[in-house]
Amino acid sequence: MEAYSHDEVADGGYAVMPEAVVKPASAREISAIMKLADRERIPVTPRGAGSGLSCGAVPLYGGIVLSVERMNRIVEIDVRNMTITVEAGVVTNHINEVLEEYGLFYAGYPMSLETCFIGGNVAENAGGGKAVKYGVTGRYVQGLEAVLPDGAIVRIGGKRVKDVTGYNLLGLLVGSEGTLAVFTEVTLKLTALPKHKVTLLVLFPTVDEAIDAVPALMTETGVVPTAIEFMDRLSVQTACRYLNEHFPYEEAGAMLIIEIDGSGEEEVEAQYDAVGQVCLDRGALEVYVADNFTTSERVWRVRRNIAEAFKVSNPVQSLEDIVVPFAQIPQLIRVIEDLSRRHGLLIPSYGHAGDGNLHATPVKPAGMSLEEWEALLPRLLRELYAATAELGGTISGEHGIGSKRKAYMPLVLSPELLSLMKRVKDAFDPHHILNPGKIFP
Amino acid sequence: MEAYSHDEVADGGYAVMPEAVVKPASAREISAIMKLADRERIPVTPRGAGSGLSCGAVPLYGGIVLSVERMNRIVEIDVRNMTITVEAGVVTNHINEVLEEYGLFYAGYPMSLETCFIGGNVAENAGGGKAVKYGVTGRYVQGLEAVLPDGAIVRIGGKRVKDVTGYNLLGLLVGSEGTLAVFTEVTLKLTALPKHKVTLLVLFPTVDEAIDAVPALMTETGVVPTAIEFMDRLSVQTACRYLNEHFPYEEAGAMLIIEIDGSGEEEVEAQYDAVGQVCLDRGALEVYVADNFTTSERVWRVRRNIAEAFKVSNPVQSLEDIVVPFAQIPQLIRVIEDLSRRHGLLIPSYGHAGDGNLHATPVKPAGMSLEEWEALLPRLLRELYAATAELGGTISGEHGIGSKRKAYMPLVLSPELLSLMKRVKDAFDPHHILNPGKIFP
Ligand SMILES: Cc1cc2nc3c(=O)[nH]c(=O)nc-3n(C[C@H](O)[C@H](O)[C@H](O)COP(=O)(O)OP(=O)(O)OC[C@H]3O[C@@H](n4cnc5c(N)ncnc54)[C@H](O)[C@@H]3O)c2cc1C
Ligand SMILES: Cc1cc2nc3c(=O)[nH]c(=O)nc-3n(C[C@H](O)[C@H](O)[C@H](O)COP(=O)(O)OP(=O)(O)OC[C@H]3O[C@@H](n4cnc5c(N)ncnc54)[C@H](O)[C@@H]3O)c2cc1C
Repeated sequence: MEAYSHDEVADGGYAVMPEAVVKPASAREISAIMKLADRERIPVTPRGAGSGLSCGAVPLYGGIVLSVERMNRIVEIDVRNMTITVEAGVVTNHINEVLEEYGLFYAGYPMSLETCFIGGNVAENAGGGKAVKYGVTGRYVQGLEAVLPDGAIVRIGGKRVKDVTGYNLLGLLVGSEGTLAVFTEVTLKLTALPKHKVTLLVLFPTVDEAIDAVPALMTETGVVPTAIEFMDRLSVQTACRYLNEHFPYEEAGAMLIIEIDGSGEEEVEAQYDAVGQVCLDRGALEVYVADNFTTSERVWRVRRNIAEAFKVSNPVQSLEDIVVPFAQIPQLIRVIEDLSRRHGLLIPSYGHAGDGNLHATPVKPAGMSLEEWEALLPRLLRELYAATAELGGTISGEHGIGSKRKAYMPLVLSPELLSLMKRVKDAFDPHHILNPGKIFP
Repeated sequence: MEAYSHDEVADGGYAVMPEAVVKPASAREISAIMKLADRERIPVTPRGAGSGLSCGAVPLYGGIVLSVERMNRIVEIDVRNMTITVEAGVVTNHINEVLEEYGLFYAGYPMSLETCFIGGNVAENAGGGKAVKYGVTGRYVQGLEAVLPDGAIVRIGGKRVKDVTGYNLLGLLVGSEGTLAVFTEVTLKLTALPKHKVTLLVLFPTVDEAIDAVPALMTETGVVPTAIEFMDRLSVQTACRYLNEHFPYEEAGAMLIIEIDGSGEEEVEAQYDAVGQVCLDRGALEVYVADNFTTSERVWRVRRNIAEAFKVSNPVQSLEDIVVPFAQIPQLIRVIEDLSRRHGLLIPSYGHAGDGNLHATPVKPAGMSLEEWEALLPRLLRELYAATAELGGTISGEHGIGSKRKAYMPLVLSPELLSLMKRVKDAFDPHHILNPGKIFP
């Protein structure tokens, strides 16, 4: 059961052993489990692939871990309605693999697509690789089958793209972190596979120049890239070493990965020319164009592996997920640099700059004792979060609150909103058996 | 107060006189009103422009009608973050008027844009003229200031594009039909104004050919039009007569309006060529291209005025808002034709075919008494809704439930979902003072 005691949060201190792990194969089986648990007041923690970064799938009060790993069937591909219906335990990347032959794709996937499950993505409202243009998971969830804490099996939404019959429970369940219902099936809206795609790797001399280019890119060109990802030198270096990859990181203080897609080749070319020019105007050293799968995949592989690389090289760290209005990204970087200087530690940063969402990652300095670190980190985070809120931002853009960030909720949500959320929780789960101890401080 | 006793639903039988109409100027004033109403248990019905089509703003139990008409300030345009913040009583069209000089636009607006308020759009999750490509109101709501039934003023979200701190209350409030909170300010995400835009008016010999082209357009071209609107002959004719406009409706059994936009002229041209070709392949008689504002506006004016024209020519009618998965649109049309034939009455149809959303409008035949009509209509609607549900659809795509459709909710929502929604209502409004009598049967 050890494997079910934690997720991908680096700090082992968050792990809690389950008392039982169950692996149901259907909504009916989950319904039976929930009925029992509700009657006997046993905590149930839903679990996807366990790739979460906020301890959402950790069974804080023991009880049952309910893993959907066996529910991994593609239920239906409806080409005419441009939807796919899958069980909650399908690996996200598998969805696009089966869709390719139909010229369709699911645009909401996160960077962890090769391991995470679609049910986990819905539970976290995961953001991802193409969010600037295509939005996050929630935009694509048209239908859900779910089991409520009392065991009722419900179907919400379906294949229709519009629906205003009563409250938007679909929108409420997306991002509910396994605390309101267990998802069993998901119907996703699909998009026509764009015919042309180009990835730009843009080198800047310093972090400031790279990050200042982001709001300019968003507003000056009229182009909407699918992604604008930021990586500082330390992030690139760490991932490259981990992968044995060679990027010219010595020359560059920071890099942007910018992806552009479209239906016409010339259109895409015109767009990336415009985007490249804005970068050069803002001081970019070099704009590399990756216009085939192999080179583009090399670039994205580095980006995707930063988190894992840091975990290996610096196991004592805190991977953060702060988000601000995207034009405030340069100010946020200055806040991070200032914190890093004042507290004498490295805070490498990377992430979805085009969404205003940065994975700043404070790292324990080699010379610091674990006790010192554990005393420092909450203070540091409090400062970081307060400054983020000051910039109109919040403490999580996509990884969720789970148990990792719950103590900090009052920094960004008023008592009225927190109590409203608690009453919503009560409306779904009066006995608090579903994933207790998460979200709320 | 008569003007505040109804909305735009044709049937005057739904009107109820308010006991008082208040026109607050700020969230603070609304908070004071709500505190009083909550203490004294006075029903409060929020009201926007009163353009609603489900009696949402009708004060079913008398009490206070709370009109936000005086709250019509543009609060802030943030060009760098591509957001606009407006008070709830701003006329939707005004938003795009003030944005034009910045090269930005708000893409979520409905067809009633010249009269409705943005607060009403948020309350209904209004769908609109560009939903196929750009989605509906909810996609653009990033922040809300709202007053809760107990008088608390809350701010949810803001200018950040991603946010997963706790439950998605923003998504829940969108479409809540004035029953959970009174919106006072809305922060909307903006889009770069597309540089090129073309409107196609496509004539088909029959309804069947026009409607069969819709799923083909969605899947075969890879092009995502901003809109695919459908109008049958009777709809075009009625609107043209009302406007004194001349469309070649004698030749055509039905028409599609297809709008395409993009950043490059050639790109848009290539797209409308492809789309036009699919239409011709499916039997279109003629594809007219309107590529300047004047001609395009002539086409859209006809579409926008259908509802009003029918109201004038056939005051006894029921404007419906059924929605199905878009590939099921041809089957839905057959259902409507069959009902029309069997019950011996006209059911002209038009609407957002690209969203699967049709405004079928059963009309009282001249020879039928009002009593007969009132006996027939509920039976007819029950048949129509049941068939719609059978096709994977539901009873409202954008106009909402209000009091007009609440009796039919059990046809499309299970008892479990309805009771869950009621518990959500209780969580927000334990004394049921905010817009009582709506949504729930
Ligand atoms: C290298 C790496 C990169 C990542 N990149 C991204 C990224 O780009 N964007 C992003 O948003 N996240 C990212 N993540 C975080 C993580 O992958 C996402 O949060 C993902 O959505 C979690 O899915 P999972 O199946 O692993 O869920 P788990 O970790 O198993 O669970 C996460 C939460 O979802 C709940 N849950 C899971 N399944 C269900 C279900 N069927 N019903 C109800 N609740 C359920 C759990 O209770 C828990 O609260 C990354 C993680 C790693 C390790
Ligand atoms: C000719 C015509 C065309 C139309 N076209 C469309 C269309 O294309 N798409 C579409 O979706 N609809 C359409 N509608 C319907 C209508 O315009 C929309 O539902 C619109 O969103 C209503 O806005 P309103 O300000 O008029 O709201 P109202 O009618 O005043 O109120 C509607 C609901 O919203 C609530 N409400 C209003 N303001 C607030 C607030 N500030 N806070 C909380 N609750 C509030 C009310 O309580 C009520 O339940 C059309 C209507 C007409 C007459």
